[in-house]
Amino acid sequence: MQIIKNESINQIKARIRQQTLKTVDPQVENRVADIIATVREKGDVALKSYAKAFDDVSLDVLKVSSSQINQAMKSVDPEVIAALEKAAANIRSFHQLELQTSFEDSPRPGVLRGTKVTALSAVGIYVPGGTAAYPSSVLMNALPAKIAGVKNIIMVTPPQKDGTNPVVLAAAKIAGIDSIYQVGGAQAIAALAYGTESIPKVDKITGPGNAYVATAKRAVYGQVAIDMIAGPSEIGILADDSARPQDVAADLLSQAEHDVNARAILITNSEKLAQAVSDEVDKQLLTLPRVDIARAAVDSNGFIYLVDTVDDMIDLMNVVAPEHLEIQLENAYDYLAKIQNAGSVFLGKYASEPLGDYLAGPNHILPTGGTARFSSALGVWDFQKRIQYLDYSQAALSDDASDVAALAREEGLEAHARAIEVRQS
Amino acid sequence: MQIIKNESINQIKARIRQQTLKTVDPQVENRVADIIATVREKGDVALKSYAKAFDDVSLDVLKVSSSQINQAMKSVDPEVIAALEKAAANIRSFHQLELQTSFEDSPRPGVLRGTKVTALSAVGIYVPGGTAAYPSSVLMNALPAKIAGVKNIIMVTPPQKDGTNPVVLAAAKIAGIDSIYQVGGAQAIAALAYGTESIPKVDKITGPGNAYVATAKRAVYGQVAIDMIAGPSEIGILADDSARPQDVAADLLSQAEHDVNARAILITNSEKLAQAVSDEVDKQLLTLPRVDIARAAVDSNGFIYLVDTVDDMIDLMNVVAPEHLEIQLENAYDYLAKIQNAGSVFLGKYASEPLGDYLAGPNHILPTGGTARFSSALGVWDFQKRIQYLDYSQAALSDDASDVAALAREEGLEAHARAIEVRQS
Repeated sequence: MQIIKNESINQIKARIRQQTLKTVDPQVENRVADIIATVREKGDVALKSYAKAFDDVSLDVLKVSSSQINQAMKSVDPEVIAALEKAAANIRSFHQLELQTSFEDSPRPGVLRGTKVTALSAVGIYVPGGTAAYPSSVLMNALPAKIAGVKNIIMVTPPQKDGTNPVVLAAAKIAGIDSIYQVGGAQAIAALAYGTESIPKVDKITGPGNAYVATAKRAVYGQVAIDMIAGPSEIGILADDSARPQDVAADLLSQAEHDVNARAILITNSEKLAQAVSDEVDKQLLTLPRVDIARAAVDSNGFIYLVDTVDDMIDLMNVVAPEHLEIQLENAYDYLAKIQNAGSVFLGKYASEPLGDYLAGPNHILPTGGTARFSSALGVWDFQKRIQYLDYSQAALSDDASDVAALAREEGLEAHARAIEVRQS
Repeated sequence: MQIIKNESINQIKARIRQQTLKTVDPQVENRVADIIATVREKGDVALKSYAKAFDDVSLDVLKVSSSQINQAMKSVDPEVIAALEKAAANIRSFHQLELQTSFEDSPRPGVLRGTKVTALSAVGIYVPGGTAAYPSSVLMNALPAKIAGVKNIIMVTPPQKDGTNPVVLAAAKIAGIDSIYQVGGAQAIAALAYGTESIPKVDKITGPGNAYVATAKRAVYGQVAIDMIAGPSEIGILADDSARPQDVAADLLSQAEHDVNARAILITNSEKLAQAVSDEVDKQLLTLPRVDIARAAVDSNGFIYLVDTVDDMIDLMNVVAPEHLEIQLENAYDYLAKIQNAGSVFLGKYASEPLGDYLAGPNHILPTGGTARFSSALGVWDFQKRIQYLDYSQAALSDDASDVAALAREEGLEAHARAIEVRQS
């Protein structure tokens, strides 16, 4: 990994900002627009034709049958089923704490104001195929929706020549997903946004995918809600001399192995740690099965920034705004107050990031590419919405009538003023 | 208004769905892409050049000075200032109830999980110019951000030949907005998303605008957060024989006067009310200053649907998913439980919609175009974000190590498993 030292904080900030710039591919945009239009026009026929063309799979029905799902449950290693069930229990107990509740107040006699919190009706979850088919992500997407009270949770996943990954089907069963369809790519997003003969239109689409999926989600945004446009995985680590280089290196590599574009960043005030982590990364890389991916990621997006103080370390990390942030410093909890931008934070030397990916309960669907500046982990709130309401008595309306009329007329909206005044007559 | 009767519920649903279809104008998209690229490249120079070209205003500085703001405060009718201050107090007391708080739990010894709720750092509010410069919207956008704890609230509004509307400046002062810039259109959105020499880059952009503003917000979505893509105003009214036709007609017109594309929909089980409201609309229209706009709206998007039962009325209205919903039925509150899709609900015969536009406290920035299916009124939650965190002891890590490793290896992510196992050594 490249060690950057003797640069000012502002120089490093400029570097970091440069690295988070994103671009959109207009060719992908045009292709996706075509696919969406075709799915809207031809429905299931289009989906089956794309399955043949893109995935080389001939499908009679898009829906995965319940007997296929039950068979999958039986075929999966019981140890994996047990781990998925333990993970599901932890995810449920954590996300239960996120439930928002309705509220109501009466600021004065005759006036009642409130907000009714309710669940979305139908949600679609995109699960990538092939090696990126992650059962853990099925749990992370579906369980918050389930806790919110979503009645209809639909999963889509690209058709596979040898059938859908049984562990993915098992995770869907454990999470209580209502139906599963074999459809992937931009065509899956179009089907969820507009509906087809067999796939119902949903209110929100969540889950990561490739450039086509991400572009399609952006295109249908507004027609349906979406969770976010997910980018490559990221880890940022704040560590000093108290950290063990082998732990830091292993955690950096745990994200680097995801994707050649993954980002792995260490910010430290220890030159000794910087060098030791760099050496450890080189050493640990050698024995990883996904060595080529991890090496490409650390070579192009792996950086160790050496600065003077812990305050500078935190200041820079808030500019990185990493998806995952580890604080491997003594009394890590105390630094939490200064963290402004991060998706999920791991405190101390034993809270290794993969605990959060799989088991501990906090969500692993997190903002990437600096979007932790303004967005948050997927949660129950993503599947709830709020309906405001208001009741006024005749007397309360009389009290406020002249103020409403004054403001309405100031804005040139006479009919607004009259709607209040007609009730006075 | 057109009265639709003797149609089945499904026929009416199909009509309603047809009416909510939206299209994007590719010419506007291309123009907006140019403007964004120019602002990113040339910054303030581009903004001043657009001010000259689009608004015919020559600007030396973009920022509105505090003396201009103080002068505006003095020039506005004291009755209007008092009404704005009363509105601000109500908006504050209602939105205060929306504040989310941090939480933490320890599901077993050695494991600590939590979510820290914090405010976005900087927010940009778009305020349209000309006749659509609404002081009330300044309050509705800025006050929830203020309550959330946003440190830097920036307002942008198109340059006007005779200076910014003093009532808008007064509302900004009352709401505690930190700085105001004279810049409008797609160029204002680009400036807020990417920053220029004088305008800081923000984390989220809120506020309605024309097609250029809406298209620009969609284009920068992901680079920054946005509130929503606002469409024309809408009102849906559920009413039976107990409602007064003049009230119902006045409220339909209060939204129709906003925009020729505004939607005004009455769903009733009373043929008598249907006819009386239609007649009242024709009558009240005649004396409205904005008669041409309101007439165009009711002619093209004003419908009265006559159905048999209150259940059918509610069922249809949930398909409309109106921005504003009035329930002018006896015991209106009791029907709230059945409302699934609406932005803001007004209960009973005295809760006229303009109360919510101006004074009562619930927000008037609401989902339109059927998006109440999945989105909500603007609120404090729009300006807060959540950072998850996790702490594990060495013993707790040992307990979970084999489960994490099993799931990681099942997903083919060996480096994830090793990050856990390296801590066991």
